[in-house]
Amino acid sequence: MTDSHCFDTSRLDALFAPRSIAVVGASDQASKIGGIPLDYLLRFGYGGALYAVNPRASRVQGLPAHERLAAIGAPVDLAIVAVPQSQVAGVLEDAAAARVQSMVLFSSGYAETGSDGTAAQQALARRAQEAGIRLIGPNCLGFMRPGHQVYATFSPAPGGGLVRPGRIGMVSQSGAFGAYAYSLARERGLGLSLWATTGNEADVQLADGLAWLAQDPETDVIMAYMEGCRDGPRLRAALALAQERGKPVVMCKVGTSALGAAAAASHTASLAGNDAVYDAVFRRYGVLRAHSITDFFALAASASIARAPKGRSIGLFTVSGGVGAMMADDASAAGLDVAPLSDAAQRQLREWVPFAAPRNPVDITGQVTNDMTLLERSARLMLADRQFDSWLGFFAAGGLSDAFWPVLQSLVQTLRTHHPDTLLAVSTLCPPERRDALEALGCLVFADPGAAIRCIGALARLHETPQALPAMADAGSALHLPAGTLSEQRSMALLAEAGVPVVPHRLVRTAAEAAQAAQEMGGRMALKVCSDAIAHKSDVGGVALNLADAAGAQAAFDRILANARQARPDAHIDGALAAPMVQGGVECIAGVHRDPVFGPVLMFGLGGIHAEILRDVSLRLLPITRDDALAMVRELRAFAVLDGARGRPRVDLDSIADTLCALAGFAQRAGATLESAEINPLIARPREDGGCVAVDALVIGREAA
Amino acid sequence: MTDSHCFDTSRLDALFAPRSIAVVGASDQASKIGGIPLDYLLRFGYGGALYAVNPRASRVQGLPAHERLAAIGAPVDLAIVAVPQSQVAGVLEDAAAARVQSMVLFSSGYAETGSDGTAAQQALARRAQEAGIRLIGPNCLGFMRPGHQVYATFSPAPGGGLVRPGRIGMVSQSGAFGAYAYSLARERGLGLSLWATTGNEADVQLADGLAWLAQDPETDVIMAYMEGCRDGPRLRAALALAQERGKPVVMCKVGTSALGAAAAASHTASLAGNDAVYDAVFRRYGVLRAHSITDFFALAASASIARAPKGRSIGLFTVSGGVGAMMADDASAAGLDVAPLSDAAQRQLREWVPFAAPRNPVDITGQVTNDMTLLERSARLMLADRQFDSWLGFFAAGGLSDAFWPVLQSLVQTLRTHHPDTLLAVSTLCPPERRDALEALGCLVFADPGAAIRCIGALARLHETPQALPAMADAGSALHLPAGTLSEQRSMALLAEAGVPVVPHRLVRTAAEAAQAAQEMGGRMALKVCSDAIAHKSDVGGVALNLADAAGAQAAFDRILANARQARPDAHIDGALAAPMVQGGVECIAGVHRDPVFGPVLMFGLGGIHAEILRDVSLRLLPITRDDALAMVRELRAFAVLDGARGRPRVDLDSIADTLCALAGFAQRAGATLESAEINPLIARPREDGGCVAVDALVIGREAA
Repeated sequence: MTDSHCFDTSRLDALFAPRSIAVVGASDQASKIGGIPLDYLLRFGYGGALYAVNPRASRVQGLPAHERLAAIGAPVDLAIVAVPQSQVAGVLEDAAAARVQSMVLFSSGYAETGSDGTAAQQALARRAQEAGIRLIGPNCLGFMRPGHQVYATFSPAPGGGLVRPGRIGMVSQSGAFGAYAYSLARERGLGLSLWATTGNEADVQLADGLAWLAQDPETDVIMAYMEGCRDGPRLRAALALAQERGKPVVMCKVGTSALGAAAAASHTASLAGNDAVYDAVFRRYGVLRAHSITDFFALAASASIARAPKGRSIGLFTVSGGVGAMMADDASAAGLDVAPLSDAAQRQLREWVPFAAPRNPVDITGQVTNDMTLLERSARLMLADRQFDSWLGFFAAGGLSDAFWPVLQSLVQTLRTHHPDTLLAVSTLCPPERRDALEALGCLVFADPGAAIRCIGALARLHETPQALPAMADAGSALHLPAGTLSEQRSMALLAEAGVPVVPHRLVRTAAEAAQAAQEMGGRMALKVCSDAIAHKSDVGGVALNLADAAGAQAAFDRILANARQARPDAHIDGALAAPMVQGGVECIAGVHRDPVFGPVLMFGLGGIHAEILRDVSLRLLPITRDDALAMVRELRAFAVLDGARGRPRVDLDSIADTLCALAGFAQRAGATLESAEINPLIARPREDGGCVAVDALVIGREAA
Repeated sequence: MTDSHCFDTSRLDALFAPRSIAVVGASDQASKIGGIPLDYLLRFGYGGALYAVNPRASRVQGLPAHERLAAIGAPVDLAIVAVPQSQVAGVLEDAAAARVQSMVLFSSGYAETGSDGTAAQQALARRAQEAGIRLIGPNCLGFMRPGHQVYATFSPAPGGGLVRPGRIGMVSQSGAFGAYAYSLARERGLGLSLWATTGNEADVQLADGLAWLAQDPETDVIMAYMEGCRDGPRLRAALALAQERGKPVVMCKVGTSALGAAAAASHTASLAGNDAVYDAVFRRYGVLRAHSITDFFALAASASIARAPKGRSIGLFTVSGGVGAMMADDASAAGLDVAPLSDAAQRQLREWVPFAAPRNPVDITGQVTNDMTLLERSARLMLADRQFDSWLGFFAAGGLSDAFWPVLQSLVQTLRTHHPDTLLAVSTLCPPERRDALEALGCLVFADPGAAIRCIGALARLHETPQALPAMADAGSALHLPAGTLSEQRSMALLAEAGVPVVPHRLVRTAAEAAQAAQEMGGRMALKVCSDAIAHKSDVGGVALNLADAAGAQAAFDRILANARQARPDAHIDGALAAPMVQGGVECIAGVHRDPVFGPVLMFGLGGIHAEILRDVSLRLLPITRDDALAMVRELRAFAVLDGARGRPRVDLDSIADTLCALAGFAQRAGATLESAEINPLIARPREDGGCVAVDALVIGREAA
């Protein structure tokens, strides 16, 4: 639940920053799995001590061959192990004897092959831990550190050309994806500090790589490719660390669809999990989620070129009215605020260019080709008039023109100098060296203005996520829930005590008590069978609604208890819960459910088909702030229903937020003893009608480990 | 409503295929608006007769200068007019005298400047029509035909390098967007047959360009950029023509957002209109709508390289399990069917590669690097096992490898030969000349597999749109509706006669009649004030629901009539409509509304918040087929609600489709006298409960022109 999980990332330095490397299974043939890393290390000039281990050779690729690790007689930080699966256990013993610090294990034949392989992998992990060896793999492509000539990989990708050393760290669970991403980074001109693949993750997980990068002084931006996570707290801690250090994490996680999740699970034997919960995790830590390989690279490159915008206002500048309209469409879709210029600024622009569109988008028209000074004048006017968080200029193919290029370069330089807090972006066609020149000024460059806008919209998220853990109002003392379902009465009592507004209700044990309750209550009444053993009361015919009078209540009591007894003869039944019918309002649903990987997740949505069928729900990890709670309500697609659309009454959003906070506090107090708590329905009403109220609830406890 | 609009596209040949060209306002300076087209025509080798018109020069760019058009003394197919607005009327008279066939008018200062300009433009259009001159512009960048060296433009874009002649025709309402698209086409290597911008569209509209391209034997694929359309029937006819000729139209239309629509409207003074109606238009004619510049080019390039897939099944092939999972996610999002291979084929793949994922996506793993023959064997096995409509292979950076390239090329060749009906695509990094080589084989090539899948999903639409006009069951004789709103009784009667199932109802004129109706009906009853003058009965307190007995009905009658009389003292009131309350079912809404540009549009959605607030409605142009009607129901985001999700009863979809067809038939019969007809609610129920039934309806007639 909290992010106090402590990483021992210092021990990863032996792995990722080795002063000495031994290649076990070293081959003389540079194309073999045991030859490739040695070839790279020699060819690209690794500066530390380098040893070859091969019991059947005297020299390998010019190096003396050692019979085994323990025979080297000098410290080995990293052993690169390229031997068949059957020999791995022996190598591990040898490494333990030689006090090797860390190991990259390429060999396959472990968890990816079934249960025998899983057992072998677990034994391997245990032995490595005993011996104090950090292990990356098995079944992985290894890693590289381009700035340090460390090539602990047999990927052919570096053979096709080296990636530039740089300040982006990249970790991938998939080797093949990682190799592709290496090539894409090279083609795109991105510079990498680390490239690592984690394979079966017997020891080092994606999260460990993230945490190490979060602390690496040579890394500014982190790219991660993930198929699934088995250790939620460790991933959360790593993401928290990156956030704390102000390093944007760009995440490509597969499995948004059922088929994709199944494909990912069959690929890695990892738990694909509920993709919507991953979204909640990413949101919590300000992770930028990429939904395509193109976006993965665009977001990472952008985050490494410029600082994220401080807010969502954007100035759009164009030499084409049509593209201006497209940009306005794209900005709307990206949730950016295309705030209009002041009247004075608009008048000034119209004075300069009579047929300009001066509002925002600002279209200075083809007129700019007659007077190049217009560009800088009008762009500076825009930024002086409104301190836009971002500014995007569309210049068509201008970047290809030798006449226009100096004007564009000078414009970007001037804007950068005078408006250092605004994220600058231009959309133009231009050759790579001109793109590099503008990017060196901290300006994003895109051919497609829509891609620029999607990227800016995503980057804006970084400043919207609180850096510190949200402070939770003291939730109160710990609660120990009994395992299993609790009756509606007990569930409502627990939630009411936690601060959830609940409908007045009372337990009636006989038909006469039910009749009396109806009389005392006045108005229409609901009766629901009450039993710890009956979670789904409607399913057993245990609910009667809209009871108008005592006679109706009396008959209903007998009927629903008879129904329940017939359906569940063994159940202990407390009686029935009597409550007034709540009139009007909007049916909502609120709950906390334990995710097997990430723990308790808070959920809110509209009731009925909205949550169940349309999946229009918002999720958050705990703890939450009150702002989070309000954001959960506002981000529903159907929010307008609560917000008074089309003459409907606006419901009391504050009372919903308070209820969500109360539910979150209850979950915190119950800790590991809570399986789930669900309020369904939570009726949302206008403030003058009393705000929201829980009409039914079900709490399920669990055996804490 | 029908697509019988007849184009006189033959007269456009003088414009787009001129045998002789005169440049009016020709300048000796090749950088001036009157110098650029002449420079291009001379430099790039226009083969027809070429004349310069300039009363103040004797020679221009080496050509003799004529004082005016009429002084040329030879036929002029096309006059390129580059003079200030004040001289245009004179040039037009001159052109009429010289029997010029067509004209490109660059000059600005017309409708884009306000009402005076609009009047001038209308006068211009009238005079051109009288004189039999086809006119493109004013305020446009003109056009080019790369394969014929016709350069009737002052865009600087060709100066930066010429686009390849080819088989894609491109028409844009915006000059600046068009110029950018020209440069993008050049950089992307696309070949163009025509590039045209239509500017203010005094005469030639985007639709005329589309229609000309639809009939142009040198064009296979059409790209169009649109900001708005003033003549719906003309656009429909042009799109129908392109569809009939089997030429894919890729459309980039701005104005999906309110801000974008406002920006587009201010830019062109054209009617932005309801973007959802444009979507219905595009769907009707199988137009591929692009939502970004990137997609605009990807779709057009793809449509020109390969034929559209015949259906939605796709075989996914990968050398990376992770990317396989991403592709599965993307295919789900694109509505493609990743059908599994047969058990036998899966067994065969597992025999070849024990750890392959054999289902689909097929992941043959890195094993392929050890045995290159695996590639062809397994790909052919996939396609032999299932006749996939599309097949996409992911080969990472393989296209960069000199060793892998021949294998990849041979694979594509083999698959192309043996499976000519399957759309082939590969995702790999490769240099442009290798991409060209694969594209020449009819294989799509993308770096990002997700982009390939989105494109394939869009192309699949082409075969899903019926080519012929849907045959409408004979709708019956014409109906002439009176102008204005009709009472519920008259509305329901008209719709019932058209075949819409309506709830039994009767008009009661007195409280006693209301009481009697309640008695005879049994069950609960609704009473609604009935008047042609009162369209919104609830707003005047004219509705009483759930009336249980005669006494209640009697009182309610008096109350709602008093309410209505008080609210609308002048209204003639017929009485009240009595009808039984319909229990259960799902509230839907169905209607026909006249769009000012495109005419009647059929609408269907769920009632309440779904249609009004969430905008979850489907739209179709008329006429429709029964399949269209069913598709309208199925494409709702909330379709699962009707389809029996989560244990709900499944409603009778056939009766909804029949009702939509009946409504469409009614609209056809009423023709231009129908403003709108709306059924709200249409209660959808299971077949055994009687299917759907209209509970309230409002028909509004209009003065037909």
